[in-house]
Amino acid sequence: MKTVSIVNVTSYTGAELLRMLARHPEFVVTSVTGRSSAGKRLDQVFPQLAALAQIEMGQVSSVNPALVLTEEPAQTDLAFVCLPHTAAAESIVTLVGRGTKVVDLSADFRLRDVQQYELWYKHPHPAPALLETAVYGLCERYRDEIGQARLVANPGCYATSAILALLPVFAAGIVEPDVIIDAKSGVSGAGRSLTLTTHYAEANEDVSAYSITGHRHLPEIMQEVVRVAQAGGQTAVPEPRITFMPHLMPMTRGILATCYLSLKDRLKTADVQALYAQYYAGEPFVRVIDQSPHTKWTYGSNFCFIYPFVDERTGRLVVFSCLDNLVKGASGQAIQNANRLCGLAEMTGLAMIALYP
Amino acid sequence: MKTVSIVNVTSYTGAELLRMLARHPEFVVTSVTGRSSAGKRLDQVFPQLAALAQIEMGQVSSVNPALVLTEEPAQTDLAFVCLPHTAAAESIVTLVGRGTKVVDLSADFRLRDVQQYELWYKHPHPAPALLETAVYGLCERYRDEIGQARLVANPGCYATSAILALLPVFAAGIVEPDVIIDAKSGVSGAGRSLTLTTHYAEANEDVSAYSITGHRHLPEIMQEVVRVAQAGGQTAVPEPRITFMPHLMPMTRGILATCYLSLKDRLKTADVQALYAQYYAGEPFVRVIDQSPHTKWTYGSNFCFIYPFVDERTGRLVVFSCLDNLVKGASGQAIQNANRLCGLAEMTGLAMIALYP
Amino acid sequence: MKTVSIVNVTSYTGAELLRMLARHPEFVVTSVTGRSSAGKRLDQVFPQLAALAQIEMGQVSSVNPALVLTEEPAQTDLAFVCLPHTAAAESIVTLVGRGTKVVDLSADFRLRDVQQYELWYKHPHPAPALLETAVYGLCERYRDEIGQARLVANPGCYATSAILALLPVFAAGIVEPDVIIDAKSGVSGAGRSLTLTTHYAEANEDVSAYSITGHRHLPEIMQEVVRVAQAGGQTAVPEPRITFMPHLMPMTRGILATCYLSLKDRLKTADVQALYAQYYAGEPFVRVIDQSPHTKWTYGSNFCFIYPFVDERTGRLVVFSCLDNLVKGASGQAIQNANRLCGLAEMTGLAMIALYP
Amino acid sequence: MKTVSIVNVTSYTGAELLRMLARHPEFVVTSVTGRSSAGKRLDQVFPQLAALAQIEMGQVSSVNPALVLTEEPAQTDLAFVCLPHTAAAESIVTLVGRGTKVVDLSADFRLRDVQQYELWYKHPHPAPALLETAVYGLCERYRDEIGQARLVANPGCYATSAILALLPVFAAGIVEPDVIIDAKSGVSGAGRSLTLTTHYAEANEDVSAYSITGHRHLPEIMQEVVRVAQAGGQTAVPEPRITFMPHLMPMTRGILATCYLSLKDRLKTADVQALYAQYYAGEPFVRVIDQSPHTKWTYGSNFCFIYPFVDERTGRLVVFSCLDNLVKGASGQAIQNANRLCGLAEMTGLAMIALYP
Repeated sequence: MKTVSIVNVTSYTGAELLRMLARHPEFVVTSVTGRSSAGKRLDQVFPQLAALAQIEMGQVSSVNPALVLTEEPAQTDLAFVCLPHTAAAESIVTLVGRGTKVVDLSADFRLRDVQQYELWYKHPHPAPALLETAVYGLCERYRDEIGQARLVANPGCYATSAILALLPVFAAGIVEPDVIIDAKSGVSGAGRSLTLTTHYAEANEDVSAYSITGHRHLPEIMQEVVRVAQAGGQTAVPEPRITFMPHLMPMTRGILATCYLSLKDRLKTADVQALYAQYYAGEPFVRVIDQSPHTKWTYGSNFCFIYPFVDERTGRLVVFSCLDNLVKGASGQAIQNANRLCGLAEMTGLAMIALYP
Repeated sequence: MKTVSIVNVTSYTGAELLRMLARHPEFVVTSVTGRSSAGKRLDQVFPQLAALAQIEMGQVSSVNPALVLTEEPAQTDLAFVCLPHTAAAESIVTLVGRGTKVVDLSADFRLRDVQQYELWYKHPHPAPALLETAVYGLCERYRDEIGQARLVANPGCYATSAILALLPVFAAGIVEPDVIIDAKSGVSGAGRSLTLTTHYAEANEDVSAYSITGHRHLPEIMQEVVRVAQAGGQTAVPEPRITFMPHLMPMTRGILATCYLSLKDRLKTADVQALYAQYYAGEPFVRVIDQSPHTKWTYGSNFCFIYPFVDERTGRLVVFSCLDNLVKGASGQAIQNANRLCGLAEMTGLAMIALYP
Repeated sequence: MKTVSIVNVTSYTGAELLRMLARHPEFVVTSVTGRSSAGKRLDQVFPQLAALAQIEMGQVSSVNPALVLTEEPAQTDLAFVCLPHTAAAESIVTLVGRGTKVVDLSADFRLRDVQQYELWYKHPHPAPALLETAVYGLCERYRDEIGQARLVANPGCYATSAILALLPVFAAGIVEPDVIIDAKSGVSGAGRSLTLTTHYAEANEDVSAYSITGHRHLPEIMQEVVRVAQAGGQTAVPEPRITFMPHLMPMTRGILATCYLSLKDRLKTADVQALYAQYYAGEPFVRVIDQSPHTKWTYGSNFCFIYPFVDERTGRLVVFSCLDNLVKGASGQAIQNANRLCGLAEMTGLAMIALYP
Repeated sequence: MKTVSIVNVTSYTGAELLRMLARHPEFVVTSVTGRSSAGKRLDQVFPQLAALAQIEMGQVSSVNPALVLTEEPAQTDLAFVCLPHTAAAESIVTLVGRGTKVVDLSADFRLRDVQQYELWYKHPHPAPALLETAVYGLCERYRDEIGQARLVANPGCYATSAILALLPVFAAGIVEPDVIIDAKSGVSGAGRSLTLTTHYAEANEDVSAYSITGHRHLPEIMQEVVRVAQAGGQTAVPEPRITFMPHLMPMTRGILATCYLSLKDRLKTADVQALYAQYYAGEPFVRVIDQSPHTKWTYGSNFCFIYPFVDERTGRLVVFSCLDNLVKGASGQAIQNANRLCGLAEMTGLAMIALYP
């Protein structure tokens, strides 16, 4: 058993880590932090964890509901950091310094180019030296590097859905650089901090676009699209022209990214599906399907469903990609990364299917 | 006072006509039909209308909750037809024959080209002769023709939101023929007929695209985009290449159409907004605004909010258009058309603002 | 035309007053306040009001979207006060002092007994002298007194639904003093202030009871039940034993109060319905019906639907009462009171039926 | 490994069994039926099961997504029957005849008194002989009998929540026979069959009571309350007078039963909580807590949270009980029963905590 800590467990991603780690056979949560709730027990902060009380009687659980929150994490083999950006980096410098492996759920180590970070996050990077060693935590792309890393930058939720939709065609070099990503997300993606936008009576029965002048997941998507095109050996790859437009949906969980692309050559849906199926063959958490996916098919699970479709009337390629923003888009992917970091099978503790209906 | 009938009042568009007509100062509903509910009173079919019982004591209402549903409409000055396509046309042949003015909320008279109709609706047009005389009921475009008509084809809900978003730029000829419309609709757009897709536990907490191989509102959009380009005196207008992708949202009402376009020349947001503001100057129900609109701002109202925005990074034009699918997208627009058909001020009975929150 | 002001227009009740007053034929809004938004225009605070911009071109609206919010209200004939309790009373002392008629939507003048106020609101009453002159604003009960008043205390939303359900049987003296009120409310009842309870991802897909040790609407209900029993000439009326249990529902608007009572004598449903129908005969906004009501039947309207039902198995009386918490439960009832205060017909500007579906 | 079949897997309870059995370490699903979908593969009926495709590569899953639906179940060790009543009994006669252990999720074997069954279900009992041998499947009450049974009648969802709330006080004999159960349920409780009541646009943003003249879970509750009182050795137990009022909530999952009782003697909250804590000590799936529970705390889990509370003002006992209607109220409890039927630890495969948020 490996010991793990969750830094800032009171966030939604922290709570979701608890839910999934409770059934993880190889990790045991031994430290949880949360500044404003320090001194409280886990089941005081999340009363639903009281359910775990008797579980230990019958079988092992990796989460003890009586665990007390502290201000700083104790020494563990691995840490999940659920802090906001910059606070995350500060905490991680210490953690890595004491030899703890880290999965960072913030944005601090996702962008390899410090200037890009400073452009989008509006302040100096808090730990540029550490950034050199960080690996972008998309197992479908950097599986081997993650296995060797000590710090993994868990991708953003939108970025995960969009990048998984775009990788196969940019790797193959069969699309023009023009990309439109119209993304729809449930409200939990905005986190647990209170805002008027996420106030129930405002968000319910409403749909709108937001961050239209530039959402911070866009540079991640750009970075990974360029890298996969370059890795494909394509010379003189033109800079992709990506419009990324996030929309807020009146639901708690789920992202659907609808991606519109221009094919260089006229292809049929079957051709493109074959390409996607081959690219993701053997992937434990990506499913290429042949119908329009529903976010509900991923509710609470670590799977991503992808459906590439050629609009015969216009020849455009439309790729639908959906996942649960808190699981494959955050905490589930973080555990997937942690499994690799610790040499475990990637699916360990993650083989749950969606809650339906 | 003009007498009006509502054919198939038991549909959602029929019920919404009742709500709005109840406060209309110039129309009085004297006939309502509904085959399976014939013989019942309105307030037996829609118990909320019981609220109207005492209203007449104090002031005139245009809807009498004790009105009994019949199988066929009585003679009235004007009829709103809320039947499904083909059934609508059959009923309208009779109505027009007896001199009744008609607003048809079905798709039967929206497409001017019979072949397009037969291609998309998969059967012969039921009344091609009548089609010649029908006017497409978008007041913002055909105000004068509607005033002279006897049969108005009320536009589809998606079509209304998309066409209003596209008219100014295609009239001005400043965009390329490439158009992507990513549309999001509440579930009431699918009507009152029972389907698994609209079963509560399936639609709740879910987002998905549907009708992806071709939604029937696409040919309407195509038709009107081409017509406005031609009307603008543009020679050799290339056929627009439109991808229209409707998505189902977990909410009852509202449509947001996010339209992606390529500008021929580099323009700024302010330039395009000025163009839109000028195009819709004086329009009673279209508002050009300078921020991302929320569907909630139109909940229960006949307004359409439009926000044109230039994505500086890519030079693309993004136009957001939102409305209530049952009001400006159906019954409200039908009353707007009926007002014109009868020579009334277009806003009569329609000056209600959105329900918020 | 009478001039009216809305104090603290940025609240949900303030916004709802704007929506309804926009179509009121006798009131014109000439002053709106909102401390943190002072200096802004109404349509900057509530963008949906931009819809009103052109309405004035065609017809009179009582709300001008360009009206600028101030810190203090200007002189008007009447004021709606939407401030929190205690702040409300302070403002009202000034308003009444300058001769303005006031409808207070806060709790400051609802309880006639100062000690009860101080017990439930935990501080001294801010204006006990004024309290003497205030009238409880339930037109169905105090119609004449309201017509003579200068200060009306608009009832609480739960209190309105419960009191309307209980009045007929306590007036008639046919029930035991044991009462259970299990009330269900939409989230907008909690207002526009941000709390974790009303955070979208917390409130969505959740039901729970709250304020179980004592909700502040309980003393209002107690007071009015006792008063109607005393008014009925009943001697030695025992103190009612009321358990009031509010529950939060995952929806924006609506209250359903399910009231459980013990009949002194065995009665049938028809008997009790006749009693209710007689009690509310001629009431413009209360409908006694013969089936289980839906909150949706009142969405956006000022009506209250009541269904009294005798459970034959146990002889218990169950009374269902539903209304829209922001309309009959707040702003609609406030306008009803304002109409009476100003000598207008009670239904003026309020004859709207529910939004459906 | 035991082989199990799911009869009528296309129901919501069938789908939920699949989700939970997929991770069950001792059961393997080898047969699934569904008349209208016979011949299809599981992942064609439930596309989210495609996620399981690769799981088998890495680890054992108990559900094979390629399993083909048949009309009749194959021979297995145990069968879960998800058919409607009467159809269920007919199928079970065959299953029991061939020696298969059965958990019946229908109502056919819940009521021990054939006359009660015929009164509430309006037709002769289809298998009265088998009824003699059936055990009511509430492990918290009949743990030992279930272990010896071959046919277990899984309780109704409302009945489970209400009975668990009432058992401790009726066993102890400390309450009067007067009981009011105001229950609130998510829409999935109504199943997957299409009705206007469960049509999205009707159920969304709506709350109402239904089946008010008598819901079929009432006789179950009556039966179990009487039995526990008798088992407690109480002589001359008066017939309980139960009013059970179910309400539909705009959410997919969850039941909150709010139960109102009269204590024979004045007790404090702490006294009653101690009684409940003792009664349920050691229970794997019942948690007695000290605050108002949220249905969300049980979302997707097999736990039931109970909070007994004494309303000091009136001396009434209020017991809140909440669970997930599809898990502890149906399929989770069915697996709990199956575990016992097969001699496994009761929690096997069920130790999952709620999805939050």
